[in-house]
Amino acid sequence: MKISAIITLKKDVLDPQGKVIHQTLEDMNFKNINEVRQGKYFEIDVKENDPKKAKEIVEDMCKKLLANLVIENYKIIEIQ
Amino acid sequence: MKISAIITLKKDVLDPQGKVIHQTLEDMNFKNINEVRQGKYFEIDVKENDPKKAKEIVEDMCKKLLANLVIENYKIIEIQ
Repeated sequence: MKISAIITLKKDVLDPQGKVIHQTLEDMNFKNINEVRQGKYFEIDVKENDPKKAKEIVEDMCKKLLANLVIENYKIIEIQ
Repeated sequence: MKISAIITLKKDVLDPQGKVIHQTLEDMNFKNINEVRQGKYFEIDVKENDPKKAKEIVEDMCKKLLANLVIENYKIIEIQ
């Protein structure tokens, strides 16, 4: 089954890429933005049909490879 | 309100980055993976309290800047 992992920078970590996108959007006349933050997205198709187990596998992947837990948070979501 | 946009490569577009992550995960003994695909994630805090309008603004941003509609799809999600 397909599980998705969203990796975002922690709140207090500066996100220069997000700031540049924010600035660019403002230059394009999107004036009503408070903040833009960028993250990473992974869609992982695991050979496991139990949603709970599949999520645990992906969580393990996040901890060991996909996320840098010092500066990043991860969120695991089941894809319908 | 905060709206998130997920940008993914279209199904038929090759995702070399995803393939490398897949290979790396296998080398780390995650053997039960069918496929990994990578995407982009944006969290946009818009000065707009109507969810429908906020989503429309972010959709417009996706079309004009964030996504390359030739090879990418976007998904707009409201953050609770």
